[in-house]
Amino acid sequence: MAPLTAPKSGDALFASVDRVNAELFTLTYGAIVRQLLTDLEEVEEVNKQLDQMGYNIGTRLVDEFLAKSNVSRCVDFKETADVIAKLGFKMFLGVTATVTNWDAEGTSCSFVLEDNPLVDFVELPDTCQGLHYCNVLSGVIRGALEMVSMKTEVTWVRDMLRGDDTYEMRVKLIKQVPEEYPYKDDD
Amino acid sequence: MAPLTAPKSGDALFASVDRVNAELFTLTYGAIVRQLLTDLEEVEEVNKQLDQMGYNIGTRLVDEFLAKSNVSRCVDFKETADVIAKLGFKMFLGVTATVTNWDAEGTSCSFVLEDNPLVDFVELPDTCQGLHYCNVLSGVIRGALEMVSMKTEVTWVRDMLRGDDTYEMRVKLIKQVPEEYPYKDDD
Repeated sequence: MAPLTAPKSGDALFASVDRVNAELFTLTYGAIVRQLLTDLEEVEEVNKQLDQMGYNIGTRLVDEFLAKSNVSRCVDFKETADVIAKLGFKMFLGVTATVTNWDAEGTSCSFVLEDNPLVDFVELPDTCQGLHYCNVLSGVIRGALEMVSMKTEVTWVRDMLRGDDTYEMRVKLIKQVPEEYPYKDDD
Repeated sequence: MAPLTAPKSGDALFASVDRVNAELFTLTYGAIVRQLLTDLEEVEEVNKQLDQMGYNIGTRLVDEFLAKSNVSRCVDFKETADVIAKLGFKMFLGVTATVTNWDAEGTSCSFVLEDNPLVDFVELPDTCQGLHYCNVLSGVIRGALEMVSMKTEVTWVRDMLRGDDTYEMRVKLIKQVPEEYPYKDDD
């Protein structure tokens, strides 16, 4: 029999959290991006701001994730990436990601998103070339991982809003300080 | 037997839409408010901007609501208010509102929210006196109603972030032009 603290499935996890309508979320996020584009002169500044916003959100969301998912310490970055793809994306966005394109060292991989609730109904005008519309997501991953002592760089390498065939986010582990995990190991 | 186009229950409606994690939504909305407070000098300007943002969102959300809820033309403003409280709030935020404090003419009422996903974890600093943190919601109601030809004024009269015991939004019907409904009447 599974111990009481076995990690939940992504579906069970998503079902266990309070939720709101995805379209409301999408339109609300769109309102942020529009506001930033109006307020800031440079698209590059908007990208930075969205990333920082995501970072702040990620540092908060990781607590809910750890509290609800029953996930305890991951053995390595590979397992961490799998947990994010299967449980993290599911718990917060209701979708799952595919982990792919690992480098030989096991320190860089990609999350590929087939379904991305952030971009429903979004079309970028020509004036927004260079905008990383989904930068909040990469920021969330970076912020959440930093809270569990993994310093990462997260960048978008494919983006359907820029004409690519999918969404691919590259995550590179820069530094890991395992002893500073903010939660107790149950083993 | 109920006809195929009978309005769905709030729970069925909420279950039928794509959803995302409420905490992610709450933190994302908080990021907007923080951004506006940073960018705009006056709290009153932030209130206006949040209301306008909500209005824009409301004019979009009404389409999803009409498409999914099977609600057809309401007989009067009273029925409209009930539909918003029981189905609209449920479909988008997963909560219901109570309709109360009707005036004698049946043109003004209040929505009272026991549960307000927008404000989880929110505390306002003293510098934000005068902020209507949830102004996006009143804007959404105003925008959505305008799309079904009801011009309204929507204001917050009680706000727990300001020390009140609940959230109460006052909706006043200013003008109604029934023949301009953007959807066909099935009767």
